Amino acid sequence: MSTYFSQVPSIKYEGVDSDKPLAFHHYNPNQVILGKSMQEHLRFAACYWHNFCWDGADVFGQGTFGRPWLQPGDAMERAKQKADAAFEFYSKLNIPYYCFHDIDVAPEGDSLNDYINNFSAMVDVLEQKQTETGVKLLWGTANVFSHPRYAAGAASNPNPEVFTYAATQVFHAMNATKRLGGANYVLWGGREGYESLLNTDLKHEREQLGRFFTMVAEHKQKIGFTGDLLIEPKPQEPTKHQYDYDSATVYGFLKQFGLENEFKVNIEANHATLAGHSFHHEIATAISLGIFGSIDANRGDAQNGWDTDQFPNDVAELTLVMYEILKAGGFGSGGLNFDCKLRRQSSDPADLFHGHIGGMDHMALALKKAAAILESDFLKAKVDARYAGWNSDFGGAIMQGEHSLESLTKHAISNAISPEHKSGQQELLENQVNRILFG
Amino acid sequence: MSTYFSQVPSIKYEGVDSDKPLAFHHYNPNQVILGKSMQEHLRFAACYWHNFCWDGADVFGQGTFGRPWLQPGDAMERAKQKADAAFEFYSKLNIPYYCFHDIDVAPEGDSLNDYINNFSAMVDVLEQKQTETGVKLLWGTANVFSHPRYAAGAASNPNPEVFTYAATQVFHAMNATKRLGGANYVLWGGREGYESLLNTDLKHEREQLGRFFTMVAEHKQKIGFTGDLLIEPKPQEPTKHQYDYDSATVYGFLKQFGLENEFKVNIEANHATLAGHSFHHEIATAISLGIFGSIDANRGDAQNGWDTDQFPNDVAELTLVMYEILKAGGFGSGGLNFDCKLRRQSSDPADLFHGHIGGMDHMALALKKAAAILESDFLKAKVDARYAGWNSDFGGAIMQGEHSLESLTKHAISNAISPEHKSGQQELLENQVNRILFG
Amino acid sequence: MSTYFSQVPSIKYEGVDSDKPLAFHHYNPNQVILGKSMQEHLRFAACYWHNFCWDGADVFGQGTFGRPWLQPGDAMERAKQKADAAFEFYSKLNIPYYCFHDIDVAPEGDSLNDYINNFSAMVDVLEQKQTETGVKLLWGTANVFSHPRYAAGAASNPNPEVFTYAATQVFHAMNATKRLGGANYVLWGGREGYESLLNTDLKHEREQLGRFFTMVAEHKQKIGFTGDLLIEPKPQEPTKHQYDYDSATVYGFLKQFGLENEFKVNIEANHATLAGHSFHHEIATAISLGIFGSIDANRGDAQNGWDTDQFPNDVAELTLVMYEILKAGGFGSGGLNFDCKLRRQSSDPADLFHGHIGGMDHMALALKKAAAILESDFLKAKVDARYAGWNSDFGGAIMQGEHSLESLTKHAISNAISPEHKSGQQELLENQVNRILFG
Amino acid sequence: MSTYFSQVPSIKYEGVDSDKPLAFHHYNPNQVILGKSMQEHLRFAACYWHNFCWDGADVFGQGTFGRPWLQPGDAMERAKQKADAAFEFYSKLNIPYYCFHDIDVAPEGDSLNDYINNFSAMVDVLEQKQTETGVKLLWGTANVFSHPRYAAGAASNPNPEVFTYAATQVFHAMNATKRLGGANYVLWGGREGYESLLNTDLKHEREQLGRFFTMVAEHKQKIGFTGDLLIEPKPQEPTKHQYDYDSATVYGFLKQFGLENEFKVNIEANHATLAGHSFHHEIATAISLGIFGSIDANRGDAQNGWDTDQFPNDVAELTLVMYEILKAGGFGSGGLNFDCKLRRQSSDPADLFHGHIGGMDHMALALKKAAAILESDFLKAKVDARYAGWNSDFGGAIMQGEHSLESLTKHAISNAISPEHKSGQQELLENQVNRILFG
Repeated sequence: MSTYFSQVPSIKYEGVDSDKPLAFHHYNPNQVILGKSMQEHLRFAACYWHNFCWDGADVFGQGTFGRPWLQPGDAMERAKQKADAAFEFYSKLNIPYYCFHDIDVAPEGDSLNDYINNFSAMVDVLEQKQTETGVKLLWGTANVFSHPRYAAGAASNPNPEVFTYAATQVFHAMNATKRLGGANYVLWGGREGYESLLNTDLKHEREQLGRFFTMVAEHKQKIGFTGDLLIEPKPQEPTKHQYDYDSATVYGFLKQFGLENEFKVNIEANHATLAGHSFHHEIATAISLGIFGSIDANRGDAQNGWDTDQFPNDVAELTLVMYEILKAGGFGSGGLNFDCKLRRQSSDPADLFHGHIGGMDHMALALKKAAAILESDFLKAKVDARYAGWNSDFGGAIMQGEHSLESLTKHAISNAISPEHKSGQQELLENQVNRILFG
Repeated sequence: MSTYFSQVPSIKYEGVDSDKPLAFHHYNPNQVILGKSMQEHLRFAACYWHNFCWDGADVFGQGTFGRPWLQPGDAMERAKQKADAAFEFYSKLNIPYYCFHDIDVAPEGDSLNDYINNFSAMVDVLEQKQTETGVKLLWGTANVFSHPRYAAGAASNPNPEVFTYAATQVFHAMNATKRLGGANYVLWGGREGYESLLNTDLKHEREQLGRFFTMVAEHKQKIGFTGDLLIEPKPQEPTKHQYDYDSATVYGFLKQFGLENEFKVNIEANHATLAGHSFHHEIATAISLGIFGSIDANRGDAQNGWDTDQFPNDVAELTLVMYEILKAGGFGSGGLNFDCKLRRQSSDPADLFHGHIGGMDHMALALKKAAAILESDFLKAKVDARYAGWNSDFGGAIMQGEHSLESLTKHAISNAISPEHKSGQQELLENQVNRILFG
Repeated sequence: MSTYFSQVPSIKYEGVDSDKPLAFHHYNPNQVILGKSMQEHLRFAACYWHNFCWDGADVFGQGTFGRPWLQPGDAMERAKQKADAAFEFYSKLNIPYYCFHDIDVAPEGDSLNDYINNFSAMVDVLEQKQTETGVKLLWGTANVFSHPRYAAGAASNPNPEVFTYAATQVFHAMNATKRLGGANYVLWGGREGYESLLNTDLKHEREQLGRFFTMVAEHKQKIGFTGDLLIEPKPQEPTKHQYDYDSATVYGFLKQFGLENEFKVNIEANHATLAGHSFHHEIATAISLGIFGSIDANRGDAQNGWDTDQFPNDVAELTLVMYEILKAGGFGSGGLNFDCKLRRQSSDPADLFHGHIGGMDHMALALKKAAAILESDFLKAKVDARYAGWNSDFGGAIMQGEHSLESLTKHAISNAISPEHKSGQQELLENQVNRILFG
Repeated sequence: MSTYFSQVPSIKYEGVDSDKPLAFHHYNPNQVILGKSMQEHLRFAACYWHNFCWDGADVFGQGTFGRPWLQPGDAMERAKQKADAAFEFYSKLNIPYYCFHDIDVAPEGDSLNDYINNFSAMVDVLEQKQTETGVKLLWGTANVFSHPRYAAGAASNPNPEVFTYAATQVFHAMNATKRLGGANYVLWGGREGYESLLNTDLKHEREQLGRFFTMVAEHKQKIGFTGDLLIEPKPQEPTKHQYDYDSATVYGFLKQFGLENEFKVNIEANHATLAGHSFHHEIATAISLGIFGSIDANRGDAQNGWDTDQFPNDVAELTLVMYEILKAGGFGSGGLNFDCKLRRQSSDPADLFHGHIGGMDHMALALKKAAAILESDFLKAKVDARYAGWNSDFGGAIMQGEHSLESLTKHAISNAISPEHKSGQQELLENQVNRILFG
């Protein structure tokens, strides 16, 4: 059996005092935090595409990685080599889950028939790999944005035959996800948007998307898939504007088509910042709307206006994200995927490990810190005290719909109210969070 | 009677060949375009606040304008002077509508009682001014964001008494708007957002807002106000994040509380760009969602990340905006308000006229150019041809819900489909639009 | 002889009233504006790379264009086909100039020797093509950013052997540019920047760049190249930060190494906006610093934070750019290159023509409008009046260095000065510019 | 003697285990780090303007703070109260330095004469306060941007009399700074930029600025002021574009006028991010250019495009900043000023303390962590190894100017060089930094 990462040992927890870079210093899978193991809390996954389908090329230059399984050769042989490399990596990294697009794992070939056959053969391979290694599938998805046929969108394409082709891929990818025991199924609408309003019928494209998602929800029922369906918001890139801009936009879309109970969101940190928000904001918003599902933890760079997909390392921000998730009861079927790209300069095979080790350790740290915030309770206490008035009879009556503008006006006049602002104490709260972060 | 703009003549249409700066060169109120006069199409309004309540101060410096009616003095006397100046201006500008906040026109005083009495007295003054000048009210609104009591929001305030105070102001401002024959009522949630997620209960604040808006819709029915209720989206500023981020977000909010038939949006160009969109995008999106109402035409500066509220002058962008509006049937009760600020350096009283003349001429130009695009029909023809497949039996069946992922897959396989991308011809369309713009 | 654009006629000026899309409506090469033909004013060039080396791929998907000369095959044969296609295109477009990178025109091969031989052979081909068609070279350049060896920079690479390899390419590209009669030589430092400050020695990399540029200036003298050397500023992408951030930054760099008389800048519209400026700003700034050289006219999209390289179509902005250039005496050896990419959806061969026709027509329009502003003179008159005080004895004495803080203080006190702000009349000026733009 | 902060105790170091919010947990003034006390390393200062001249107003609303010393009343009496409050605060906070603008401390009055007299009287008061409390002056400056006369700039104003007025203020402010033993003198050009290129002579304004700065450098010599002169870069706001955009731009400006040895930069974190950079980038760049002077540590908000001036709390970023400063030998006469604003909602007097305590503790943490990175030396070792080739004979010869493009080409050919990229290991380095940050 070929070995692609022979120079790298199996990655183990060695604690904060270890100097070994190829080891976990915070992620201790079985360590119990708030009654659950780290592994159960975090549900880490590594992706197939950036790690095993990308050779380090960018718009301005060729690949720098020289991966053996991406060299020219017989497509199915290379696909099997790729699977060998991927599962060798997942196993050595001791990461419990992975994620894939249909055409990450199998070559598309030259026809629909090729696609179906190749994908079917590779799902067999994946199934066997899962069994051999114990690595599980966090989610599957279909790539309906890379092929030229999707240049003007998949479900939102002006041509119904392209819509149909996309439906075919999603049909097969959902079935494969079910067969492989996938915990969720994801839809990212990379080209579901517009390049120019001049040639676009926004309303019709939106209705096409609504139709497509409805069929996806129906197919889930039909095949008895019990995982969550997840939409991944992104504001733009590659399109000028993507319909699934952010969590609040996706919520409105779901409500329009009566799908708010059928889909949740898979929130990516980098997409949050490209939309002008913070990662924390998107998580808190999705939770407040009842549609939080899963995470792609990869971050962007504040100096750059595109998806850099870097490994997460801002522990302060990640802690607030984990705090929101813990408050909300943790992940359900969702998890924490690294949809991360190495930097193009990081051309050593070991860099793949360094990236993920960092990501996993930083998220583990964030989990520990978030648990500490939750246990110390000062944030909750502050928020509860701040909104306490809404628990009064008067506040309650307003929320119960027992008041009108007129009745409130009468109340205000008869009580000559003159409410005063009370400090929000933001600086104090920020200090307290940092004291938990830095001891 | 005092005269504040004695040096400025009444502004008339003098045509493109006139060299007079204090004249309209494109806005010819009675010129008929596509069967309706320019005045009816554009429904121009000038605002009260930036023009008559602002003295040119910014965060880094004092006022530069030296307006006589903003000097120290008896508050109600100054308010009357301000009304004199405002209506002298509106009349000389020959603009058909104006807009105001409650506390733009009347001093708040030291108590709720003062507020009510002062506002009532000034509404009498406004009513008389409207009668004297023929200037009408496009919309009224309440300022529930400037006073310190609203520092943590109005309807979304942690304190229900602040919510109540805001309800009182909106009650009075809606009643005044009805009495003054206002065509619409607007709500801008300047502080309805958060500064820090650390001290904020997003879900509760959202429900408070939902409750407040429901009361507003009920009050409209109760008093028989027949105009539109309009929410004005803005992504941030003064808050870090505002709940009415953009049109798509407002749509989701309205759907959550079953208010999508009760409210429309008042879209501001500058808020569109602060949200990472274009003005064109926001208009087209609101129309596609069925919630387009009215416009604040003021633009931002692409180099600056805050609300500069400049007069609109990008005729190319404005043309596309007017094209969308004409396609959608034009404004209903909405109109085109200039929520515009002079630059702080523009300290001549005549600058107020130059700003509005430019704004009105540029919008009139945009109207003429948009009508020409509509008449030449090349955009519609292109879009219709591009989506023609959806009018086929097959396309129609998909949209009618007669297909599933499975049936489409069968169709794809049995027809061995292999759809090909067709050029979107964006560059050609952009050239054609520019040829209409520049002849 | 093979024909790649058989369906497209030679593009001619047909005037504003022509309905033909494959024709110029404003660019009339021999029309005289302010004493010089449009062709001489504008010095248009089309690039080799985006038009003939790019197949429509982006980070999220494969190529959509299907260019015959980019199919697999013998590399030198394909390079010759590419040259055939390029010069057929340039000839049909009637564009006077082109631009290229060394490896756009010739395959790199597997060794330095291959590179030198292939490039030399293709320069022979280009020379012959130029003779046959009359198309001239606006500038040449070397691509020292795409090959993996340049992943960490070329001149700023931590490895002096990579610096040396880059020197070798620039040596050959400069010599080829001279031989082909190129009017300028350009340096764009695509990877001359950093991805992470953690592994970067900023000071050393800056000195390496200074050394490299000094050698380039010396080589120009040595070979008697009489064109301008041009640095192309860009703030970031593909790097996180590029050392040639914008014109002001390049100016400081040149001053540091005493190179301010040896290099000028080639300003790209899209790079200007990525740097947080406007195209107008960068042009005006470079002119004010005495380093303005040439233009890449391609624009970005305000909604997208990366280099979209679209064809220029904002005639209002372009007019102000041409106004600055006319005021400064026009292009010297520089010109106006379209470093433009079609949108990935624009997959018809004819789209290449539509893009360039639009770009050339919009710039020609801008030239005509800019000349009209210059002739009407209102901007110059306004600016002269505004700064008139500096022509007084007192103003002149200050600028001549005859005053100190102390002498000015004495002057201020003895004259009890109390200067008042005078309106900048920005809105009026904006209106006047638009009246020239839209008649 | 009046007491404005009676409810707040003197702030002392109580260590990380203390639960007291009104105490330092990391800033231990006399703790020695790398051979120097924390107090000597950090040279903390608190500003006068945001803390004592601002009442919590923003563009959308009135003040929320209700400071007693900002109430209406006799201007000089209020100025003395303000000084009482300021020095009570500085003393209780145990911060060693403060900073002020001339008109922060004294009312401008109605004439130049008033300005001179009032300022002179208040400098007497400050001198006495400094003596009484031991608080020292880190830097003084003149506010030449708030008064309407400066609406179109101070030194770059089109009117030489405004230039002269600004010179008068800077003359007095420099003299006062010297008299008060100030360690530096700062110039921030808040209005030294443009609102519109249409009415601006960029070249002339730049020359005016050059003239002004030259006079400032000469005056420093004349009065024997031995501190540093510092320019504070900012890209925009309140202007559309400010001439001192960022460190690299200021460097070019200084070089143009031969002032690069006379001025250094005072870098503000929030200005760095508004310019599209990181705080770390601006510090590292200024150091690499030899112009690093001092810091304004206040940060912005990544979701907001204006100067929010918040207290610094991103310990990870601050650590890298302190690492650069330590590597460069620490602050000279510069220091670390908090040019910070409370959030408008933070209306408790105690919030002023919470903000500064947080800022000081976070910077102290950053100092400790930066020292740990320096001591562990892994970053320096990595960088040294990466650039080692430049210490070879060949690398050295290039840097010494012993090579030309031609000689390098010969070297490349005769050695058939084929250099390969080596991983930059960015992810590994990021992990190692985080391991020091989080133990």
